[in-house]
Amino acid sequence: MSPQETNQFPNNTEVPEIVIARLPQYLRVLHTISDSGIDVISSLQLGKQMQVTPTQIRKDLSHIGRFGKQGKGYNVGYLATELQRVLGLNKNWHVCLIGIGRLGRAILNYPGFAPEGFQIKAAFDIDTAVIGQTIGGLTIQPIDDLKDDISKHNIKIGITAVPSNMTQKVVELLTSYGITSILNYAPMYPQVQPHIKVRNVDPVLALQSMTYYLNRPTNGAEV
Amino acid sequence: MSPQETNQFPNNTEVPEIVIARLPQYLRVLHTISDSGIDVISSLQLGKQMQVTPTQIRKDLSHIGRFGKQGKGYNVGYLATELQRVLGLNKNWHVCLIGIGRLGRAILNYPGFAPEGFQIKAAFDIDTAVIGQTIGGLTIQPIDDLKDDISKHNIKIGITAVPSNMTQKVVELLTSYGITSILNYAPMYPQVQPHIKVRNVDPVLALQSMTYYLNRPTNGAEV
Repeated sequence: MSPQETNQFPNNTEVPEIVIARLPQYLRVLHTISDSGIDVISSLQLGKQMQVTPTQIRKDLSHIGRFGKQGKGYNVGYLATELQRVLGLNKNWHVCLIGIGRLGRAILNYPGFAPEGFQIKAAFDIDTAVIGQTIGGLTIQPIDDLKDDISKHNIKIGITAVPSNMTQKVVELLTSYGITSILNYAPMYPQVQPHIKVRNVDPVLALQSMTYYLNRPTNGAEV
Repeated sequence: MSPQETNQFPNNTEVPEIVIARLPQYLRVLHTISDSGIDVISSLQLGKQMQVTPTQIRKDLSHIGRFGKQGKGYNVGYLATELQRVLGLNKNWHVCLIGIGRLGRAILNYPGFAPEGFQIKAAFDIDTAVIGQTIGGLTIQPIDDLKDDISKHNIKIGITAVPSNMTQKVVELLTSYGITSILNYAPMYPQVQPHIKVRNVDPVLALQSMTYYLNRPTNGAEV
């Protein structure tokens, strides 16, 4: 353990998962700010970009270290570098994809993963009509190869794009081979052990969080 | 305003946006619980399903009303119904989609929207090779039809699936026609007025929130 007061991983104190989930959003916004030539930003300005209160920002960032002095604002570059380090984004991560339907194909061709350090190294399906096809530079393999490929390619993250009724089974297969981080595209929540992290790409949840605002009696009138 | 103490929209007190974003997740989990025949659930059990603390659950739900008594647990059906009402999910919402590339096609064929009350009523592109095609039962229209169709179909939500460098422009077009809720699939954050709600479907952010755990010195050892 580091003797520093502002420890990255304070003893026994987990950084709340909901805070961890927000940190990449801070990083994204900081990169945009940095690209526009701004070096220092106040929590008020950063909050405006993130659509959260300055207090929330100070609270969130206090979990991972001490950044900025009261009234001085944050050093954009330093904060971004620290966030990258804490989140493990200063290295590349190898990913496998299971399920090569229409969505799986869009995922294989998605241009956003590689520049951010996420490389899909292997893709799997159970459909013999799909196995052997080359999509996005990868040859689709039978699911039986999964175990060996995870080891061979040092794969740490699995993406599931299979139908809902197969997702739990595929997630269990991945975790049985040592995968602890899973990005799930199916509209269901797989059940996993506490040390397994699952994130659900779920556009319906996103839509459902906006209808609240559409549904308000004050809709359209508030500032 | 309702005279009730537990007002749905307390005067001047906004429910935090981050809480609103979690409520659909509660609803999803409650439906799963209900489907398995459970009528009452403790905040401990609900927290386990949601992977958050019972305290967090009680705090989140306190924003929208009073549910359950200390030690009694939550009535699953009642809580789900109230969440649906608060979130405006007891009605259908009409949606338009802009950008009919590979991703747009996957979105048009996504089976998860309609059962949840989100109906894509119109789809638009600028590519004359795409306009006129029928995908997922919809004929792709030129973007020039957008304004009239929003009004004609009572569309309240826009989905953008255009390239990053076109997204800001398309978002501004939508908001200029009165759309206040936008689901954006491009890997960038559009800048909008405070009363406009944008949700980003962003798989990279989800991946980046898991590498934190993969990157920890204790990874694999913690319980």
